[in-house]
Amino acid sequence: MTAPDPPGPPPSPSPSHPSTSIPPARGFALTLELIPDGTVTSAKGFIAGAVAAGIKDPASDRLDLGLLAADRPCTAVGMFTQSTVQGAPVVVSRRHLAGRRARGLIVNSGCANVCTGMQGIADAEEMAALAAARLGCPATEVVVASTGVIGRLLPMERIRAALPRIQLSPEGGMALAHAIMTTDTRPKHIAARFAVEGVTYTVGGIAKGAGMIHPDMATMFGFLTTDAPVPPEHLDDLLRSAVRDTFNMISVDHDTSTSDTVTLFASGAAGGPPLTPAHPAWAPLAQAVLAVCRHLAREIARDGEGATKLIEVRITGAASEEEARRAARTVSASPLVKAAVYGNDPNWGRIMMAVGRSGARVDLERVKVMIGDVVLYADGAPLPLDEERTRAALRGPEVVLAADLGVGSASAVAWGCDLTEEYVKINAEYTT
Amino acid sequence: MTAPDPPGPPPSPSPSHPSTSIPPARGFALTLELIPDGTVTSAKGFIAGAVAAGIKDPASDRLDLGLLAADRPCTAVGMFTQSTVQGAPVVVSRRHLAGRRARGLIVNSGCANVCTGMQGIADAEEMAALAAARLGCPATEVVVASTGVIGRLLPMERIRAALPRIQLSPEGGMALAHAIMTTDTRPKHIAARFAVEGVTYTVGGIAKGAGMIHPDMATMFGFLTTDAPVPPEHLDDLLRSAVRDTFNMISVDHDTSTSDTVTLFASGAAGGPPLTPAHPAWAPLAQAVLAVCRHLAREIARDGEGATKLIEVRITGAASEEEARRAARTVSASPLVKAAVYGNDPNWGRIMMAVGRSGARVDLERVKVMIGDVVLYADGAPLPLDEERTRAALRGPEVVLAADLGVGSASAVAWGCDLTEEYVKINAEYTT
Repeated sequence: MTAPDPPGPPPSPSPSHPSTSIPPARGFALTLELIPDGTVTSAKGFIAGAVAAGIKDPASDRLDLGLLAADRPCTAVGMFTQSTVQGAPVVVSRRHLAGRRARGLIVNSGCANVCTGMQGIADAEEMAALAAARLGCPATEVVVASTGVIGRLLPMERIRAALPRIQLSPEGGMALAHAIMTTDTRPKHIAARFAVEGVTYTVGGIAKGAGMIHPDMATMFGFLTTDAPVPPEHLDDLLRSAVRDTFNMISVDHDTSTSDTVTLFASGAAGGPPLTPAHPAWAPLAQAVLAVCRHLAREIARDGEGATKLIEVRITGAASEEEARRAARTVSASPLVKAAVYGNDPNWGRIMMAVGRSGARVDLERVKVMIGDVVLYADGAPLPLDEERTRAALRGPEVVLAADLGVGSASAVAWGCDLTEEYVKINAEYTT
Repeated sequence: MTAPDPPGPPPSPSPSHPSTSIPPARGFALTLELIPDGTVTSAKGFIAGAVAAGIKDPASDRLDLGLLAADRPCTAVGMFTQSTVQGAPVVVSRRHLAGRRARGLIVNSGCANVCTGMQGIADAEEMAALAAARLGCPATEVVVASTGVIGRLLPMERIRAALPRIQLSPEGGMALAHAIMTTDTRPKHIAARFAVEGVTYTVGGIAKGAGMIHPDMATMFGFLTTDAPVPPEHLDDLLRSAVRDTFNMISVDHDTSTSDTVTLFASGAAGGPPLTPAHPAWAPLAQAVLAVCRHLAREIARDGEGATKLIEVRITGAASEEEARRAARTVSASPLVKAAVYGNDPNWGRIMMAVGRSGARVDLERVKVMIGDVVLYADGAPLPLDEERTRAALRGPEVVLAADLGVGSASAVAWGCDLTEEYVKINAEYTT
């Protein structure tokens, strides 16, 4: 059923992962430092940990129950699946985050607690209460998230027994990143750091994806933290804007999960006055949140079930931003495009098929279609196919498909992965 | 690249296919006789034929160019893809059918003539002109349809050379059904016959599908004929209503073709006065058109690329007909549902996931989910899983998935197929 997962405690961060810098964005002079080994505990004030509770498999030592805690009450916001069928943890967490205040997060993999009726709600509430007792806060300040099979009750006795064994530490974010994995082949994590006026701010995050990935207003799991002090309404804007351009622009299989949950906690432990759009640290903070979300989103697409390649779709020349997004997502989600990329097949007509299906307006006399840097259609006609060059552009681990629709100036980028026999194998026998 | 296709002339109709009857529908006493070996030439007044023109492969003797002709001018209507990227034949055929009058149809497989610029339009117009010269009618009375790879010009010299070799006959419908196949593994054809007030009416049709199947207002190829005399506006109603409940309710891979074309020609050769909704033969005629379209639609889903099973999704208890249709289509198109059916995996949570993603309203306290006749979720909670019985319900060549959403009285049925490794293999190397 599942892809390999390192047993027991995760490996410690590799010293061969140096920090990298990305150049300053327009409008402010800043070096945003990306921390590849960073996680949700890289920001000051957060600790985490995880254990093997036997939810995935009673006999396994795979991590499947984790806790994230802040050393003080945080402002906190969340975005959740737009599905009309929502898991019990989503119902409970929406309610708990209504006050935009949280102290911790309890999460498990191996069972999604969805379509489980009133017992499922009671179980999600008990998970929050157990975590709250451990953290010394009201249950309403705990977010609950569960991922895995739909339609099964949680093994609550195992969760009750395992929770006290979780060891919380500032290094525990990596264990938490492992504990949320299902068919993911590797953990997804990153942090970004910058300094403004002598204060150093950090944004960190972890995520899980792999299958049932086609987010609609939210996504799979993405848990983010920052030590910046941010008032709740501004924190919400920050998260919504980043999710729109990152998690909401990925697709593995066009199926939307019942459990999609993204949260952002702000502890304020970095110190200094509250950050609002007027503060000089606001723009870099927004850029850091965007960079963390984009990295995690791309990692989810790259690690899609059975995938061998990350696909980046760039749409330009669209009539509106909405049409650009729709076209980019439709191309990145098309099973025929994805299968062609898997086979290194220069079947660019499928890109145009998917653009057409999206409903985005096009001017066929001005459209330009590219695979990598090879132009395949322009000026109203197909170009002679340089098959070897096009196949070469399809062969790498990251493939760029681009289309200029020729009708306007709006653009969007979306990410997906190729479709392989392995995806079918993984999903033909998932529950058994 | 392609699935097997019988070379050369198709086998003659098997005598082991007896005619079957279906019981009279409510509101009129009638026996509708289904003719399994029937085709588009079963209705009086139509002849057809096909040749191997070398469009699919110059060295092959696979049929790939065909003609359908009526012995008199017909009323004729068509429905076409809603994609914003439409093939040249779609552009030309829309124009030719504006007058709701046609004499014939020319169709090829192996090249879709899409994204081919002004040359593509000129080629589609020349195909119509060549066929019109052969049939002795204006070019505007010929429908043109092409299917196959997108983004390549038609080999017009081969079409010009092959067209005179087509032999037209009242038995030629089966050759035409073969000539429109691409990755289809078998031809799709049927006819239905009934008598009212001493006049016998016939409706026949052929179709092709296999991949890029998720029709939106029309479908892949479906060519229908009847010898009933029907005025144009009523013929249009008849086709739209049947397509809504049949071709528009199937999905193979969620991708919509640039070339979708369904046409219905009415020759009037059966005789009698014009059929309108006031005529006693109107209701049986509508039922016959629906039966022919439903058979062809189901055959397309059953023969989806790589498929081993037909999936029928029945949604009841929806808040509106639109939501019922949306839920049924989303379940039937979900890659995760399709992969689970392939693996006989009783993962019914994915049915609920897909219903939720569709946006259809549900009452989770009243929802009922079934695989075959096994109830898996009811009264707000999952039932203990009878795994062996559920797997048995998944094992046959036709699998029924059903959900009552518990909020209203609207219902809909959709069809799809399972997702197999073979789908990926076929589509990873389609053009080469």
